[in-house]
Amino acid sequence: MSRWEPDAGGRLREAALELFATTGYEATTVAQIAARAGLTSRTFFRHFPDKPEVLFAGSDTLEQKMVAALRAAPLEASPRRALDDALDVAVALLSERADFARRRHHVIAANPALLERETMKLARLSTALATALHERGVGQRPAAMAAQAAVAAFGVAFDQWAREPGANLRRLVEENLDLLVGLVRDK
Amino acid sequence: MSRWEPDAGGRLREAALELFATTGYEATTVAQIAARAGLTSRTFFRHFPDKPEVLFAGSDTLEQKMVAALRAAPLEASPRRALDDALDVAVALLSERADFARRRHHVIAANPALLERETMKLARLSTALATALHERGVGQRPAAMAAQAAVAAFGVAFDQWAREPGANLRRLVEENLDLLVGLVRDK
Repeated sequence: MSRWEPDAGGRLREAALELFATTGYEATTVAQIAARAGLTSRTFFRHFPDKPEVLFAGSDTLEQKMVAALRAAPLEASPRRALDDALDVAVALLSERADFARRRHHVIAANPALLERETMKLARLSTALATALHERGVGQRPAAMAAQAAVAAFGVAFDQWAREPGANLRRLVEENLDLLVGLVRDK
Repeated sequence: MSRWEPDAGGRLREAALELFATTGYEATTVAQIAARAGLTSRTFFRHFPDKPEVLFAGSDTLEQKMVAALRAAPLEASPRRALDDALDVAVALLSERADFARRRHHVIAANPALLERETMKLARLSTALATALHERGVGQRPAAMAAQAAVAAFGVAFDQWAREPGANLRRLVEENLDLLVGLVRDK
């Protein structure tokens, strides 16, 4: 086996999801994931620091791409407009790998420890977006509120999209933001 | 020493905060906290499962009281109105122990692991409020969005209030919710 397998990361992720869905997350070992992908545990650990990261490494990529999109928005764009650019990138990325994202979501939803890790990743995404907004000159409070609203809308939309094949993720995010305005105003 | 000390929990919390502020969170042991409170480690562990919980046990009380207030809101109240009742309870509870809450906040803000635990507690609070709203007949998506907006407004307000003696926590929450509406609408 060569030291660098082509798309070893992708094969490991796919093998992991198949095993998690059939054998269960807890019962699956890194050795089993590697074997199913035709690779060794050493190769697994060259790509992922631990078993859960085979599910979460993509979240870091997502965060980086969303922050980059926000930073690239025109300086005169409102916080909402800049966040929309970030959300567009997230939607595009997830839609490209919809099947994987949905199966991943079901594994995570069934395991409280993974759900907690997912929550932490979303919280970190929110902080990263707020920081990037603040660097564009948005005040700390509005930056935090806008970022949290965007991440909440995205998280709730993603939950629904994962359960409803055929749903439009971008539209769900938009609906959630509209919903938010109505809910907060209706005292 | 009698088995049940009067307000042992409160004395342990106070001793812990004093030590965390002077010696640092990591360097402080449970034995030191107990000794400073004039109690034993056994008594500490009768009140808190581990060292961090001396800071976080109050979050569970806060969550329970907020959920109870939301449940007690008139059935015809809008989600916002019911959440306002929950936020009022949180504001009252924190204002009563403002000095403690502020010192606690500074200890947590300085420690990434504690900050992560605080984030998880806020996420759980949000889920608990969303569930209670859903039980009142609010749809799952609006319940999740409204609860997340309320908790975001509360969290951001609390951050500022902890840094600014004399700030009005309830007003900050209200301002954040108004801010949210403007930010989401300004495309």
